[in-house]
Amino acid sequence: MSATTLLLVLDLAGVFAFALDGALTGIRSARIDIVGAIVLGLTTAMGGGIIRDLLLGVTPATFQDWRYIAVALAGALLAFFLNRVLERLAMPIALLDAAGLSLFCVIGATKALEYGFGPVQATILGAVTGVGGGTLRDVLINRLPTVLSRDSDIYATPALLGAAIVVLAAAAGGQGAWAAVLAAAVCFTVRVVALRYRWNAPGPPGTRPSGAEDRY
Amino acid sequence: MSATTLLLVLDLAGVFAFALDGALTGIRSARIDIVGAIVLGLTTAMGGGIIRDLLLGVTPATFQDWRYIAVALAGALLAFFLNRVLERLAMPIALLDAAGLSLFCVIGATKALEYGFGPVQATILGAVTGVGGGTLRDVLINRLPTVLSRDSDIYATPALLGAAIVVLAAAAGGQGAWAAVLAAAVCFTVRVVALRYRWNAPGPPGTRPSGAEDRY
Amino acid sequence: MSATTLLLVLDLAGVFAFALDGALTGIRSARIDIVGAIVLGLTTAMGGGIIRDLLLGVTPATFQDWRYIAVALAGALLAFFLNRVLERLAMPIALLDAAGLSLFCVIGATKALEYGFGPVQATILGAVTGVGGGTLRDVLINRLPTVLSRDSDIYATPALLGAAIVVLAAAAGGQGAWAAVLAAAVCFTVRVVALRYRWNAPGPPGTRPSGAEDRY
Repeated sequence: MSATTLLLVLDLAGVFAFALDGALTGIRSARIDIVGAIVLGLTTAMGGGIIRDLLLGVTPATFQDWRYIAVALAGALLAFFLNRVLERLAMPIALLDAAGLSLFCVIGATKALEYGFGPVQATILGAVTGVGGGTLRDVLINRLPTVLSRDSDIYATPALLGAAIVVLAAAAGGQGAWAAVLAAAVCFTVRVVALRYRWNAPGPPGTRPSGAEDRY
Repeated sequence: MSATTLLLVLDLAGVFAFALDGALTGIRSARIDIVGAIVLGLTTAMGGGIIRDLLLGVTPATFQDWRYIAVALAGALLAFFLNRVLERLAMPIALLDAAGLSLFCVIGATKALEYGFGPVQATILGAVTGVGGGTLRDVLINRLPTVLSRDSDIYATPALLGAAIVVLAAAAGGQGAWAAVLAAAVCFTVRVVALRYRWNAPGPPGTRPSGAEDRY
Repeated sequence: MSATTLLLVLDLAGVFAFALDGALTGIRSARIDIVGAIVLGLTTAMGGGIIRDLLLGVTPATFQDWRYIAVALAGALLAFFLNRVLERLAMPIALLDAAGLSLFCVIGATKALEYGFGPVQATILGAVTGVGGGTLRDVLINRLPTVLSRDSDIYATPALLGAAIVVLAAAAGGQGAWAAVLAAAVCFTVRVVALRYRWNAPGPPGTRPSGAEDRY
């Protein structure tokens, strides 16, 4: 399997995980129907890349490739029909989702650098590729987006880290492929450890720590 | 009246209906003022076409034509000043709205094909043209978007059907104008029958049917 | 200091005020963390310009200039760490925010005219540049956007006024710089007077006046 094929397979796995997660979140949080599951699945899976491409000023890429749409559709329909089974598979799905996040932040930062954007923009766009779809999903179902909330385990931070490693490696003239693997591995590890130990980003000074309302 | 003029008149009628509906929904659901009615009217009427054009990678078209803006503004202001009268005209407005939906999905799918997008994308973009504006409206007033909800009569499904007929006819080399009329007629009929008989799309397996909480 | 430098400094001051306000609003209204404060700060400061540029069909400009991102980041972090101090500085922040609004509506309308858009579009895009970021902020934190609400002091109206003056002056062949200063001054004055005397835009006929529920 060539590197390009491997990357496509990984990318489609990420799209699948995000679509599954988007539809499952919708079913858990709102009174959606089958069309809603499909809309949320496609939006979660492809929204981050679409926002990135709009900010880059280029035609959204994934939307032009029917394979991305087909895989996202499959993920959403699977979530719709098997949601009760899948609820019990929370950990494997979270791992797949972390893999998608890792890949998306690396792909996003790389694309931004290719289009001549600066290091700050490339880091932001890498993170946006990772978290943009989930943010659109949360806006659609009227939920405080995960990326903003101090009650969620960190999600944007690992994506920012992964994107920053890609940008730093490019600035240092590093070998692209190895930097990408390292960046994705760091993002994935930080995200999974954050999930396991419930790491939250700090709230503003003077506020109670996250989750405090559950303990007292 | 030439075909182009007829299409323009129909398109503006759709814009008018969507603007009216957007502002009325806002007045019913949230504490909006006159500026809010205008913003919701313009967003509902032009949002679907704008999202479609962003996904196509072209400059939003309707926004460049002042006639669309003027007609949308008229619809929003009429809704604002006459909202109590218009509430009693729910059925005529719903019919006008269904006409707008039918036209928008046909125009959207046709434009996507013209720009060389594939059949899957053209079908989705046809539906997005029809339902995108109402989805933006619902997001702005913090409501679960109609297109997701299993408590709403089907709305995206007729738009998808209409768009799919345009795409299939184009693939079969069919006469564009007749296919467009047929597609719009199917979308309109399905939407109106769905309204009349309260057709809902199914919720996920294991959930109570839509509306069940009203009956028991 | 040259006119270009002056304009840049003013523009960055507006970005700073909007970022500060975006993060403070988020901290007041939702359980956000430090990443949320940064996301809301950047979105509020740069969202209006981004929506304008997408509607103009050009690559979002402020996002390409790292100085805008750096200033917005500084505003968001300041708001995060000093939010309790800043809450007591509501009036100076509101004035800075009004200055940002005035500048943004003038810049937005001017850019739209430069790109050959008509007077109606330029007026709308001026207002969108001013209020778009705050609207995205409110959507993200699930609040009825200020621009729609009849319980908020008028905010979009001064921006529309400022943009309209730019457009009228351009149509009359007026000297660009003086028209811009006049437009910004009118927008700023109307906004500040509206704040001071709690001007609201009217609700639909038959509804109770804004704020009536507080008095009885």
